[in-house]
Amino acid sequence: MAMMMNAAASVIKTFASISPMTRALHASPGSKKIVGVFYKANEYASKNPNFVGSVERALGIRDWLESQGHQYIVTDDKEGPDCELEKHIPDLHVLISTPFHPAYVTAERIKKAKNLQLLLTAGVGSDHIDLQAAAAAGLTVAEVTGSNVVSVAEDELMRILILVRNFVAGHNQVVNGDWNVAGISYRSYELEGKTVGTVGAGRIGKLLLQRLKPFNCNLLYHDRLKMDSEMEAQTGAKFEEDLDAMLPKCDVVVINMPLTEKTKGMFNKEKIAKLKKGVLIVNNARGAIMDTEAVAEACSSGQIGGYSGDVWYPQPAPKDHIWRYMPNQAMTPHISGTTIDAQLRYAAGTKDMLDRYFKGEDFPAQNYIVKEGKIASQYQ
Amino acid sequence: MAMMMNAAASVIKTFASISPMTRALHASPGSKKIVGVFYKANEYASKNPNFVGSVERALGIRDWLESQGHQYIVTDDKEGPDCELEKHIPDLHVLISTPFHPAYVTAERIKKAKNLQLLLTAGVGSDHIDLQAAAAAGLTVAEVTGSNVVSVAEDELMRILILVRNFVAGHNQVVNGDWNVAGISYRSYELEGKTVGTVGAGRIGKLLLQRLKPFNCNLLYHDRLKMDSEMEAQTGAKFEEDLDAMLPKCDVVVINMPLTEKTKGMFNKEKIAKLKKGVLIVNNARGAIMDTEAVAEACSSGQIGGYSGDVWYPQPAPKDHIWRYMPNQAMTPHISGTTIDAQLRYAAGTKDMLDRYFKGEDFPAQNYIVKEGKIASQYQ
Repeated sequence: MAMMMNAAASVIKTFASISPMTRALHASPGSKKIVGVFYKANEYASKNPNFVGSVERALGIRDWLESQGHQYIVTDDKEGPDCELEKHIPDLHVLISTPFHPAYVTAERIKKAKNLQLLLTAGVGSDHIDLQAAAAAGLTVAEVTGSNVVSVAEDELMRILILVRNFVAGHNQVVNGDWNVAGISYRSYELEGKTVGTVGAGRIGKLLLQRLKPFNCNLLYHDRLKMDSEMEAQTGAKFEEDLDAMLPKCDVVVINMPLTEKTKGMFNKEKIAKLKKGVLIVNNARGAIMDTEAVAEACSSGQIGGYSGDVWYPQPAPKDHIWRYMPNQAMTPHISGTTIDAQLRYAAGTKDMLDRYFKGEDFPAQNYIVKEGKIASQYQ
Repeated sequence: MAMMMNAAASVIKTFASISPMTRALHASPGSKKIVGVFYKANEYASKNPNFVGSVERALGIRDWLESQGHQYIVTDDKEGPDCELEKHIPDLHVLISTPFHPAYVTAERIKKAKNLQLLLTAGVGSDHIDLQAAAAAGLTVAEVTGSNVVSVAEDELMRILILVRNFVAGHNQVVNGDWNVAGISYRSYELEGKTVGTVGAGRIGKLLLQRLKPFNCNLLYHDRLKMDSEMEAQTGAKFEEDLDAMLPKCDVVVINMPLTEKTKGMFNKEKIAKLKKGVLIVNNARGAIMDTEAVAEACSSGQIGGYSGDVWYPQPAPKDHIWRYMPNQAMTPHISGTTIDAQLRYAAGTKDMLDRYFKGEDFPAQNYIVKEGKIASQYQ
């Protein structure tokens, strides 16, 4: 415990020495109040011992935290002025949240959180946090970068195939007692030979391109940067500097970029109208990159031939969210990054960062989203 | 037309000279009665000009056949003593059928079909034909080998991911107005690192292994023959000579073997009990390879964690088929091999074989299922 107090004290020093904006510690250095916001497992908690991403299992770090004298509050109740999270905002030091059941960290909440030092995202994707406000308040924001990129990339390939094959229409027939092959196959295709473009070729986009390689597609990618030549050679993907030039070529468009002020609502009516008629769209990035109404209209008109993703705006999607009712959708709740394998990985990554935080050590560089008042480049 | 008559005459000669069992032509050599049995497109016929596998588009070969003086009857009515197909059995020369809407060619029908010479399967999979009876009657049976193997292999990979991710449970929530991430993710996994075994590594199995390669799985295959070393090196798949030794290692089992007397009902209660608890099974081969009741029971008990495929016994699956109602199924009607791309390919392959038949030329060697009284090795 003594060692930990020293470690915590050194955190103060390190942070304070780096930037005048960095908020000083208010709590005693030895004991931190840590709040985790996760989704509830309820009856599913007992069904899998590795279901660590749930409220009930709380990343599997409770014993470890409490044995070191920290307080660990875990809840799924995150909305409105009377929610459990709100009660702890004034005195928590660390908030752990996830993109799957996002605790929206607004400027207002940051203002109230006088003791807050660290915002950890268990997973990847921190746009539920007001990063400008966090940076201005001198907070550190970090993710478990890479923890679920394989999960998401695999899921994207699944969704591409589900749309290309018209799987959902087929499965619905089974459940409804029907058998009408024509009603499925008239719009069922091979992926082979089709043009697939990814908007964004970061870690997930690259993993997707690698997995698409043996399908013998025409692969395109748009990003701020060209991939290294080894990756281009390995995937056979062609760089498209101009997004508007790439999009009309694509039979399948996959969204692989973060939600930022620049990408918010990017796929509006006008952009969608420029896509190939009947285009298939996969979006596991963020719902708000799309104009909700424009997507629903284009699915109804046939301009979009199929839309699949696990991200919505807002989340959880309300019962009357129009994407639940549009034709040719293959949507799910936000699950692609929260496989059991990913949960084990982001739980371990969160524990590692907490441990480094207690010891006053830096996090792995790629994990920082806001550090010393600066927002990471992909969120700018 | 004269040339065609000569060509047809040479067919007689060629066939007759090879085997005493080969049935001689009964019809005039110049005009053949060809019957095609396909599924009906109905309202979907007009939705896609390339929907050639339907009754309405009839492989797109009507004008070509009729311009050469042949009669071409097309129907989807194939069951029972009063069906359309039955009326034409006594005098047809060629029957074109598909696995998607199978015209069952029984020994009884073969006996009645006095003029029958050629049974063509538009697609791959001729187990709806009594091959022993066809061989004994001296008929030729041929498929369009390879025409839809890419379609089927892609579809298998889709189904693996759908089961590994628990996609159907997630999509059902969307449709039902729910949002419960835990109810999906407690049994949602990455494919990476899992053991996938294919039972059979013919053309489809090999294409599947190639597509699985970048997913970093542990790949196993069982077949009568070891693949060539180049293919083993390319896919990284390990040969398992003993099926019963391979099966308990697999997180995912994919069935890729034809239905034969030996494989019929192979996956019975006893075999399924030997699989890893919670195994995921993908079967786009044939429904009758599985014991229907045993699969349903194992899905209910959790011994099978998920089952997906597009093949059933019988087909079309009746409304009360137990697989429609078992838990954790991701079934569809028989569609994997009848994408639009595959339809165009098997229509072209069928036309090519008809053309060769009229001209007295041999078919591509790999297309023969029954030739000169002998059944191809994979169906023995």
